[in-house]
Amino acid sequence: DIKEMSRIVLEKEGKTALQYGPTEGDNRLREELAKMMNKDGVNISSDHILIVTSSQQGLDLVGKIFVDPGDVIMVSRPTYVGAIQAFHSYGAKMLGIELDQEGTQTILLEAEIVKLAAKGSKPKFIYEIPDFQNPSGITMSLKRRKELIRIAEKYDLIIVEDSPYRQLRFEGKPEPSLIGMNSERILSLYTFSKILLPGFRLGWMAGPSELIQKAVTAKQSVDLCSSPFNQSILYEYLSRGLLEKQILIISKAYKEKRDFMLDRMAQYMPKLPGLKWTQPQGGLFLWVTLPESMDAGEMFMAAVEKQVAYVVGSAFYPDSGGSNCFRMNFSYSSMAEIEEGVKRLAQVIDTWKGRRETSIITP
Amino acid sequence: DIKEMSRIVLEKEGKTALQYGPTEGDNRLREELAKMMNKDGVNISSDHILIVTSSQQGLDLVGKIFVDPGDVIMVSRPTYVGAIQAFHSYGAKMLGIELDQEGTQTILLEAEIVKLAAKGSKPKFIYEIPDFQNPSGITMSLKRRKELIRIAEKYDLIIVEDSPYRQLRFEGKPEPSLIGMNSERILSLYTFSKILLPGFRLGWMAGPSELIQKAVTAKQSVDLCSSPFNQSILYEYLSRGLLEKQILIISKAYKEKRDFMLDRMAQYMPKLPGLKWTQPQGGLFLWVTLPESMDAGEMFMAAVEKQVAYVVGSAFYPDSGGSNCFRMNFSYSSMAEIEEGVKRLAQVIDTWKGRRETSIITP
Repeated sequence: DIKEMSRIVLEKEGKTALQYGPTEGDNRLREELAKMMNKDGVNISSDHILIVTSSQQGLDLVGKIFVDPGDVIMVSRPTYVGAIQAFHSYGAKMLGIELDQEGTQTILLEAEIVKLAAKGSKPKFIYEIPDFQNPSGITMSLKRRKELIRIAEKYDLIIVEDSPYRQLRFEGKPEPSLIGMNSERILSLYTFSKILLPGFRLGWMAGPSELIQKAVTAKQSVDLCSSPFNQSILYEYLSRGLLEKQILIISKAYKEKRDFMLDRMAQYMPKLPGLKWTQPQGGLFLWVTLPESMDAGEMFMAAVEKQVAYVVGSAFYPDSGGSNCFRMNFSYSSMAEIEEGVKRLAQVIDTWKGRRETSIITP
Repeated sequence: DIKEMSRIVLEKEGKTALQYGPTEGDNRLREELAKMMNKDGVNISSDHILIVTSSQQGLDLVGKIFVDPGDVIMVSRPTYVGAIQAFHSYGAKMLGIELDQEGTQTILLEAEIVKLAAKGSKPKFIYEIPDFQNPSGITMSLKRRKELIRIAEKYDLIIVEDSPYRQLRFEGKPEPSLIGMNSERILSLYTFSKILLPGFRLGWMAGPSELIQKAVTAKQSVDLCSSPFNQSILYEYLSRGLLEKQILIISKAYKEKRDFMLDRMAQYMPKLPGLKWTQPQGGLFLWVTLPESMDAGEMFMAAVEKQVAYVVGSAFYPDSGGSNCFRMNFSYSSMAEIEEGVKRLAQVIDTWKGRRETSIITP
């Protein structure tokens, strides 16, 4: 399909697609995206959309327009490592709020905001990944979403909603997106990387027009515009309804892999007190918590020796923490690799647990 | 050709090209670029090259890795407006050094560096566009290039060499590039936007490996990687020697347009004391200086009324200045449009000159 769309673009409009385009992005593509968001309950028009070169660029632009060195940003613990890097590069100080099974704990969030206010300070924004969070796979409950928005309104705060996985729901009814609940103080980031292909490096940002305008100005100095060639190909793809079909195909394939991985985890993992993992309803990731005494960082080399890998949990903590956690991806590997990988990982955990105890006994 | 290369990429390696790639860029493409630079007298390997999403991103990364708010950067007056924006967004203070027909006046540059040193300060880097400078079209003489490098060595400074037009030389022997003269303290930015097509949003950065490594880390948080799809297409294009042919074709076409524009300027422009323009040996731009009393900004609306446009000179000044100058582009318009445009502009200048005098007389 991409091949066919590339051909169409080069034949129909080779000249335009290979020139510079508007910084905001291809108008036709922005309109298709607005329509897609309308179907998801978000009441915005294409004026509120900026095409970005991947949602990572969205995070960088957010850093550029909001953050001055020393500014405080509220994030969950754990949170996406790429967001930590992007905000950190602008000198942000990230204040992490513990997650539970319903998402960021809004009571703790509000308490921290009140503490900041007492010191005469205020967060620049709240960063959230409400759907199938990276790395935990947790989806924020409707109750927490409402609380989050109430807090944003009460304390006059912006929420940056990162939505790379929202369309990858395998089961259950979606909760409304934050931008669908309040389009006036939410800036949302989306990407084609998880639903279509990362190799195009395209995503989009949606939000209040004054923030989108600031982001457009920032993008101007960052890369002038995103590739009009790639945007044209995506427009042709979207306007034919091919993306919706593609999302269905991907979601089905990922669901099978998630089911398979959860099944094999239940089968192979040693029964240790405290060892547990999340059961995500979509997305790409499982989050594994080891018994408190175990260190996923220390265990990593033993895992690599067995040719099985994971991302160490502490990478997703803006401060310290997560040392007994790690992230697993179920979308990338084949079924056979998942089976073998889980088996090996279970062995490593079992052995490492013993070794740790030994090393505690011997001086 | 691009159509054919897209087809080849999608057939040969569709899967890889549509996935994430290394932040440094496609190794095969980096090797082709190193070869191309070797032919231009630059002794570096592919390890010293980072693929960027347009050279505007290169400027943004340079800002990110070098600039803390309040840092001083040396630039020429005038200089590229996109560089001013990119560095400004990181809080840089730009110190402009007057250009003449040989490029940045290195005597003035050294004097400013000495003055800074007396205050215990030092520029973060010197920003230069040595070949067919934007906006002036001026090429830096060999003598000045040597002086520039001597100054960089003496005061332990980095030079950021912006080279978007270097390959677009219409006549005469090229001067060595700065990075060709000293590869240890020069970071050079190149782009495919001017020699092939802007719609791909690709360029590259070349320089000392520790700086390239810093830029790779910065790029990681900015957009992870540049489009592997577009990089693969370019690799196929370069490896077949098509880019060299393309540069010859473009240079020939632009030369004809430059000759034509210069010819029509000589024919139509009113003979006013102080009215002059540059005679670039390549690139895309002419720089016009009006008599001191005239203001190109004020005249702009009158030009637009006549449906002829230019970029007002003051946009290219990091401080104030350039109000009696403007930039013209000779690469974009057709011959017929150039003829008509120059004619109209000549009329506007002639009329505006009269109007200004009138408005000075009447209170």
